[in-house]
Amino acid sequence: MSQFADFIGSAHTIEFVPGEVIFAEGALADGCMYVLLEGGIQLGRQGKVLEEVGEGGVFGELALIDNGPRSATAKATAPGKLAVISGERFRELILRNPSFALEIMRLLARRIRFHLRP
Amino acid sequence: MSQFADFIGSAHTIEFVPGEVIFAEGALADGCMYVLLEGGIQLGRQGKVLEEVGEGGVFGELALIDNGPRSATAKATAPGKLAVISGERFRELILRNPSFALEIMRLLARRIRFHLRP
Repeated sequence: MSQFADFIGSAHTIEFVPGEVIFAEGALADGCMYVLLEGGIQLGRQGKVLEEVGEGGVFGELALIDNGPRSATAKATAPGKLAVISGERFRELILRNPSFALEIMRLLARRIRFHLRP
Repeated sequence: MSQFADFIGSAHTIEFVPGEVIFAEGALADGCMYVLLEGGIQLGRQGKVLEEVGEGGVFGELALIDNGPRSATAKATAPGKLAVISGERFRELILRNPSFALEIMRLLARRIRFHLRP
């Protein structure tokens, strides 16, 4: 998992407790993605676990990019903290750091390959 | 479909005839993606049609991004011409034009949503 935390600099952070839902599958997006700074987040869809996000990992980027509804539910599995990245901040990060853009593309590519697995 | 052709400037181009295979599912990637300038390309996987790429559309970006094998076969359905974008040129385009990066992300997001459809 790439360490996205290195890219984001100062950001608005939110603390969470286990069981807390950061966003729910199907919800209209708030235009933000999240970087997990501490703790654990599980991504699930239609009752199945898609991914355990590790510290430094990103989630919620899909709805930020295409303004679609949340494709998965993000639920805390351990107490922790996340950084909130708005759409505006996201575009700023891409402008300032092309490596960030490439890392996000690699993350999206990984999600596509996940769906293509046999 | 976004007009990627507007972004790429001058590029190495290749002409093709109907039935020609640009790349085959499972092939080790040559590190290039393609912008369709004229004609038609069909993307297929495991015998199923995934997408008809229109003029101005991009294909082959997944393997360029993650260096994995080709996830689909790209076959010409009409005579045409494509522009070849190497990995180096891809990074240059991102550096020079963050809007190009965002368009590629939107394309990847569209591919993820395609796999998530009911």
